[in-house]
Amino acid sequence: MKVLIIGAHGKVGRLLIDELQNKQIDFAAGLRSEEQIKAYQAENIPTQYIDLTAPIAEIKNSIEASGADTLVFTAGAGGAGYDLTMEIDLDGAIKTMDIAQTLGIKRYIMVSAVYSDDRSKWEASGIRPYYIAKHYADKYLRSTNLDYTIVHPGMLTNDDAIGKINIQSNYEGGSVPRADVAKVIAQALETPSTIKKDINFVTGDEDIVKAVR
Amino acid sequence: MKVLIIGAHGKVGRLLIDELQNKQIDFAAGLRSEEQIKAYQAENIPTQYIDLTAPIAEIKNSIEASGADTLVFTAGAGGAGYDLTMEIDLDGAIKTMDIAQTLGIKRYIMVSAVYSDDRSKWEASGIRPYYIAKHYADKYLRSTNLDYTIVHPGMLTNDDAIGKINIQSNYEGGSVPRADVAKVIAQALETPSTIKKDINFVTGDEDIVKAVR
Repeated sequence: MKVLIIGAHGKVGRLLIDELQNKQIDFAAGLRSEEQIKAYQAENIPTQYIDLTAPIAEIKNSIEASGADTLVFTAGAGGAGYDLTMEIDLDGAIKTMDIAQTLGIKRYIMVSAVYSDDRSKWEASGIRPYYIAKHYADKYLRSTNLDYTIVHPGMLTNDDAIGKINIQSNYEGGSVPRADVAKVIAQALETPSTIKKDINFVTGDEDIVKAVR
Repeated sequence: MKVLIIGAHGKVGRLLIDELQNKQIDFAAGLRSEEQIKAYQAENIPTQYIDLTAPIAEIKNSIEASGADTLVFTAGAGGAGYDLTMEIDLDGAIKTMDIAQTLGIKRYIMVSAVYSDDRSKWEASGIRPYYIAKHYADKYLRSTNLDYTIVHPGMLTNDDAIGKINIQSNYEGGSVPRADVAKVIAQALETPSTIKKDINFVTGDEDIVKAVR
């Protein structure tokens, strides 16, 4: 297995690098700027340039050059504007799904959000366009023939990892450290039974190794 | 046939009202505010309140109340911000498609844009998020079992109707008056052979009545 982390400069992306290094899983950190690449290279982290707003042929070249057989999508526009939300969280994500299928890459892990399938919760969130983007990206992923897993963490915190979660069929509140989100992704990569599944989770009382199944 | 024009206060929507009145096709003008409704009622235009940013159950009530068996989607956020582009052009449109299927409404005409399927043209347009929204709305529509027609007019003008167009397999430049877009929609409503088709067109030399087939 070789993983391309798309959005490796984000908080979850950076924590996932630690997890993959601990597990000795081969990977490349997908980054969108020379500045990010230099910073990671200084830490001896393997890198791959990838710009999700580029034409699809360029993104394909980046993914192919990485040599990855597995993609983890943890990129996002964040608060940079809803134009970029559409270009990255929606269209950028879907471009990578199309490319994965073209290149014969089967395994695809998407970092999504709770409520991405529940419109009734979007209104009060104050970030409805974000949910729209995540919703349609997830929906598209489920319509592909990729071996996907979609993870939906509860409210994210920057706390240290706890290592214990509960899987919920519907989000009922609760938070989870980003460090544990990274652990869930790393665990899912090694757990084929998570293929074609959505996993909603928050901090709980079950070891991640056992809960992710 | 009874048509609900979703986005009847837009320029194309207003012109389509004239066309449907001329053809004596029953319709309701779908409008998002009391102010718009009062203005149209003053012109004896039949109206139906519909807010595409509302919860899906409310939109369903609006569509059901209209009594329509046919939807024309010509709403759009325009320059009101990409948050609204996502809520109206993308999610709003798709909500109406889902509702149409729930209610057993089969016929659905979407007013789209040239280039909505050609990412290579989005970059230079300066309105890439708009194309992303239109692209995924169109794509979703094609995946439904609705009797859809997707019209892709060339560069829109406010000129008087000319009544003549050319259908293009790919947009090669050219403009078309919004008044002729309204005529194309009205013609498509009466032309079942346009079902499951995308129609790209600009002003040309063929009568709309003959060209729309």
